[in-house]
Amino acid sequence: MHGGWKQSNWIKTAAEEAEAVASISCSGHGRAFLDGLSGVDGKPVCECNSCFKGPDCSDPIPNCEVDADSGDPMFLEPFWLKHAARSSLVVPGWHRMSYEFGDGSLISEELENHIRRLHSVVGNANTDGRYIIFGAGATQLLNAAVHALSSNDDGDDTSSSPSRVVASIPYYPVYREQTEFFQSEDYRFDGDTMSRKNKMDYLSNNYIELVTSPNNPDGQLKKVVLQGESVKTIHDLAYNWPHFTAIPAPADEDLLIFTVSKLTGHAGSRFGWAIVKDEAVYQIMLTYINLSVYGVLEKPSCEF
Amino acid sequence: MHGGWKQSNWIKTAAEEAEAVASISCSGHGRAFLDGLSGVDGKPVCECNSCFKGPDCSDPIPNCEVDADSGDPMFLEPFWLKHAARSSLVVPGWHRMSYEFGDGSLISEELENHIRRLHSVVGNANTDGRYIIFGAGATQLLNAAVHALSSNDDGDDTSSSPSRVVASIPYYPVYREQTEFFQSEDYRFDGDTMSRKNKMDYLSNNYIELVTSPNNPDGQLKKVVLQGESVKTIHDLAYNWPHFTAIPAPADEDLLIFTVSKLTGHAGSRFGWAIVKDEAVYQIMLTYINLSVYGVLEKPSCEF
Repeated sequence: MHGGWKQSNWIKTAAEEAEAVASISCSGHGRAFLDGLSGVDGKPVCECNSCFKGPDCSDPIPNCEVDADSGDPMFLEPFWLKHAARSSLVVPGWHRMSYEFGDGSLISEELENHIRRLHSVVGNANTDGRYIIFGAGATQLLNAAVHALSSNDDGDDTSSSPSRVVASIPYYPVYREQTEFFQSEDYRFDGDTMSRKNKMDYLSNNYIELVTSPNNPDGQLKKVVLQGESVKTIHDLAYNWPHFTAIPAPADEDLLIFTVSKLTGHAGSRFGWAIVKDEAVYQIMLTYINLSVYGVLEKPSCEF
Repeated sequence: MHGGWKQSNWIKTAAEEAEAVASISCSGHGRAFLDGLSGVDGKPVCECNSCFKGPDCSDPIPNCEVDADSGDPMFLEPFWLKHAARSSLVVPGWHRMSYEFGDGSLISEELENHIRRLHSVVGNANTDGRYIIFGAGATQLLNAAVHALSSNDDGDDTSSSPSRVVASIPYYPVYREQTEFFQSEDYRFDGDTMSRKNKMDYLSNNYIELVTSPNNPDGQLKKVVLQGESVKTIHDLAYNWPHFTAIPAPADEDLLIFTVSKLTGHAGSRFGWAIVKDEAVYQIMLTYINLSVYGVLEKPSCEF
């Protein structure tokens, strides 16, 4: 009825492998992974955290500088270890092999529903009547949003100058690096928001303001600086969760970006989403994702 | 020694869930997934293939047009069903939560080794002394390659015109759509390769030729058309595997692109790789991936 596999025991080998690798002790300063580095016998070995070495990561490396501010969300790992039974997942070899879901979409309806429910429970964003789009982390959605907000109507590119992308100092350096690297004809990075506010030239040019709250790197709750018809805003709310900040009210702006990296700590899974009010902006972001990676069919590896 | 989880039975629930969903019969015209649509009781239901409906996908939809040429690699699903025990994987909730691997890289050394070994066994590409880079499917790597090959030295953009991207008709439409959508200052799509060969104007302009072999959509074994110092080539070898074509000799050109979608049929996993001869090109492609999705930490869901 459902193919030639043997129903009994087909998970046994995978379970034994996973248990074996999970039981490798790395002294609390590293971890072994099934898809990780192998020893001489082909079996997984400890991958040590920075500043530790040795077969079980028990040797501190002298004079090693600890990276205390990269934002790598490893502080959440003990939580998932503690909830091992509820957070583990068996992925069969034939899982979702198609490019698309049954409805022809690249967006999982079920995952979208979970995200709406999550925001409703947490109270950190309003999703009512909004579109939701997935990306390979917030990084991809940031550029998709810049692209969508800077696109000129009817492709009539010669009639207007590129949109100017700004963010308030101190800002996440990727905003600048990404905008400059992609060299689009439609936008360019223009530095600190405050310098524009003072010059008032934003009244005559199109601006895209990146607003990060809580801010990366300094944790401040930032607000929109520029205002007016020529200003569009992207709200990067990666850290807008109760374990980072108090949530006084659900965010309700036009374009909100979130990521699982900061919510659950699964940074390595590369999954983010945007909540978008305007349908035209949503459609361009969807085209961006389709043409850059042909969709993101990320499997949720944990229960929200 | 390794966290607070209970070693015994932590996989039990995940295994039971996976077995239960795998045992749902969808009449051979669909499949139920753990992360898929749910019925009224919250349990997964059949997601039917096109042209079928009903709770177990047993009702044909009258006058339904079958998509016979999209390239969705579902013909490989029975293979993975048959090899259920060897192809299944347990993903613990704490699997690779970090953004990076232990060495600070976004590229899995172990997966890179597997890819080199695979090409060596199959004999379809030479990886000796080449760099390997990962992307979210060939789609992303195509644009990364166009970007890298069109980048001007020292950022001195004003001194040269944009590179012209060409492909021989009939070509995969995404080549054009992608190149036009991203609106880079560094390149633009310029149509059919053959029209350029006849005009000979490629001697005075920079060209990037996309060579697809076997070709998508017509399966022809295409060769480079344009030649000369102003021409750079990208070889899209997505279908260059023995189950699609005979392999007379390993590909040895400067920039080769492959994808797991066509090799194993795992299109939904969005994983591809490029084999790159030139270190400078490799470095720009790496920057492209880092700035667009902050790396691709794809878990291989099957054994090659």
